[in-house]
Amino acid sequence: MAKAWHLISRPTGLPTMANFALRDLPDAPLESDQLRVRNLWLSVDPYMRGRMNDAKSYAASFQIDQPMTGGAIGEVIESRLDGFAPGDLVLHMGGWRDGGVIGLDMMPNKLPAAALAAGMTPQTFLHNMGLTGGTAWIGLLRIAAAKPGDVVFVSAAAGAVGSAVVQIAKAREMTVIGSAGGAEKCTWVSALGADAVIDYKGGPVLPALAAALQKLGKGGVDVYFDNVGGEHLDAAFATASDFARFAICGMIDVYNDGKAQEMKYLIRAIPARIRMEGFIYTDQFIDCMEEFYADMGALIAGGAVTMRETVHDGLEATPQAFLGLFSGDNIGKMLVRL
Amino acid sequence: MAKAWHLISRPTGLPTMANFALRDLPDAPLESDQLRVRNLWLSVDPYMRGRMNDAKSYAASFQIDQPMTGGAIGEVIESRLDGFAPGDLVLHMGGWRDGGVIGLDMMPNKLPAAALAAGMTPQTFLHNMGLTGGTAWIGLLRIAAAKPGDVVFVSAAAGAVGSAVVQIAKAREMTVIGSAGGAEKCTWVSALGADAVIDYKGGPVLPALAAALQKLGKGGVDVYFDNVGGEHLDAAFATASDFARFAICGMIDVYNDGKAQEMKYLIRAIPARIRMEGFIYTDQFIDCMEEFYADMGALIAGGAVTMRETVHDGLEATPQAFLGLFSGDNIGKMLVRL
Repeated sequence: MAKAWHLISRPTGLPTMANFALRDLPDAPLESDQLRVRNLWLSVDPYMRGRMNDAKSYAASFQIDQPMTGGAIGEVIESRLDGFAPGDLVLHMGGWRDGGVIGLDMMPNKLPAAALAAGMTPQTFLHNMGLTGGTAWIGLLRIAAAKPGDVVFVSAAAGAVGSAVVQIAKAREMTVIGSAGGAEKCTWVSALGADAVIDYKGGPVLPALAAALQKLGKGGVDVYFDNVGGEHLDAAFATASDFARFAICGMIDVYNDGKAQEMKYLIRAIPARIRMEGFIYTDQFIDCMEEFYADMGALIAGGAVTMRETVHDGLEATPQAFLGLFSGDNIGKMLVRL
Repeated sequence: MAKAWHLISRPTGLPTMANFALRDLPDAPLESDQLRVRNLWLSVDPYMRGRMNDAKSYAASFQIDQPMTGGAIGEVIESRLDGFAPGDLVLHMGGWRDGGVIGLDMMPNKLPAAALAAGMTPQTFLHNMGLTGGTAWIGLLRIAAAKPGDVVFVSAAAGAVGSAVVQIAKAREMTVIGSAGGAEKCTWVSALGADAVIDYKGGPVLPALAAALQKLGKGGVDVYFDNVGGEHLDAAFATASDFARFAICGMIDVYNDGKAQEMKYLIRAIPARIRMEGFIYTDQFIDCMEEFYADMGALIAGGAVTMRETVHDGLEATPQAFLGLFSGDNIGKMLVRL
C-alpha cells in the first residue's frame, strides 16, 4: 500500500513537522488513462511553501488532509495509459509519496530514452532538465534578456536554480557574481565558474557586492537574478547599471515571515531605468520548451552545466528535506531518494 | 540685465531658500547660433530635486554658483540663430531666469504656429504638450502598455503628470483610480473623469484602494502609474492583477529624505508576475515624439485632455514654486509667470 505525506494544518511562518502526517493512500484498481508507479526520486522546492497557505496564488493551495504533490520520477508498474509500459521511467507531479495511482492530472511524461542512454541520470529531470534548470534558463535568458558581456548577480547561487544560472551565464560569456551562505557553498560556486562570490553570512550584502564589482573592474550590475529578496534585492537596486533587468524568481527570505522588506535603493529604478519582473516557469515553459531542452541538453552533455545534489534517503525524510531549504541545508538540488 | 536663480549650496533633505540666490547674469553680445530671449513662463518640476545632488543621475547635476536651468517659454528679442526672429515664441531649457542669452545647448525650439493659431496657450508646451504630458503618455501607453479595459491606478493624480494620465486613460476607455491629497484635489480628479478617487490624507492607501476596486467591481490593478513611491507603491503590489505593469515615473515621497521604503507586498511580484519599470521621458521621447504630438494635440484640441495651472508670479517666486511641489501646493502644473 502506497503512503503519502498529507498536509494536516497550515503553517504560520516556518513550517514544522507537526504540519505533516504520513498516511496510507487508498488502494484501487487502475481506471483508463491511469498508471501505477513506484517512485524513485522526489523533488522538494521552495515554491511549495506558498501552496501551504490558503491564499490565492499561481498554484492551487494544498488541501488539508489531502496528499501533497510535487515533481517526482517513478517507474511504471502497471499501465492503462497509451504509450506507457511497465519499466518506463516517468516524470510526474505525484510526489511526496512512494508511489500509487497517477492520472493525467499528474502530467506524466516519459523520460527521453536517448538522454538516458547517453548517461543522463533520471533525477536530472527534477533539476537541470526540469523545473529548476528551466527556471534558471527562462529567467536569465528570456525574462532578464541577459547577453554576452553582461554583469550578472545571482543570489542563492549554491541553490538548484542559482547554480544553474551561474553556469548558463558563464557558458554565455557573462561576468557572474554569486552570493551564497558559508565557505563550503562559496567554494562550490567559485568552482562552477563564478567570477566573484559573496558570502552573505560574512556581513552586509551591499558593501561586499560593491567591492566585488570594483575588483572585477565593472561599474554595475546589468542583470540580477533574485532568489532571495530583501537585502540582496536592495543591493541590486543600489548597484544596478542603466537599463538593468531584474528577474524575480524567488524571495526565500520572506516566504515564511511575511515581514516588510526595507528597500533603501528602490528609488534607483527611475534614474537607472531598471526593469524588474516576477516570473513563473510554467507560464513561459510551453513557448520555449523545445529550445530549452536542446540548449540545456547540449550544455549538460558538454559538461558546461553540472549539478550537485543534496540527497535525503527514504520517504520519511521528505518534510525534513523540504524544511532544510529554508535553513540553507542544501548545496545544489535537494532531493529525496526512495 | 537678466537675472537667474543660482544654486549656492546643495540641499540635504528638503531644499530651503538658503540653497538659492538670485544673481545677475553677465551681459554679452550674441555669438553666432545664439538668441536673446525674454522669458514669459518658467517650469518647476520634481526631477529638478535630483539635479541638486552631487550624485550621478540621468541628468547632470546643477553646479554650485552656476545658474539653474529648466524648461521655459521665451520671446525672441534678438537672434543670430537661423530660422528664429524677434517675436518668435520658443521653448528652451534656460529657465529659472528672466531671460538672457540662449545657445544651442539650451535646445531652443519654436512653438508651432498652427497650434498657437488654434488657441493653444504657449505654456501648454511646458505641460500637456511637453515634459509632463509626454511623461504621462509614454509611461501609460509605452512603458505600462495600458490598453482599453485596463484598471489603472495613478498616484498624485492631481499633479501635472498624474492629471494627464487620468485623462489619457479615460480617453482610451480604461477604468481609472486616482489618489490625491485633500478634498479640493480629489474633486478635481473626479471632474477629470476618474472612476474613483482616494484621498491619501484621509488614511492608509491600501484599504482605500481595495475598497475602490470592490466598489467598481474590479479584481485588481492592471496598471500602476507611480509618482509617489512608498505606501502607494506597496498598495499597488498588494492589489495587482496577474501580469500587471507598473510604470515608475517618480517617488516624490522619498526624493528628499532618502529613507527606506517598507515594502510588505513586493513579494507579490512573483505570484502575480508583475513587471515594474522605471523610465525617463528623454530616453523615449525621440522615438515617439511624432505620434505623441499628433495624439496629444488631438486630445487637447478635442477637449479630452485639459490642465489646471497653479501659477506663481514673478521670477522672485521661483524657488517657492519649486518647494511647493514637495508640500503638495500645486493642483495641476506648477508654473511661474514673468
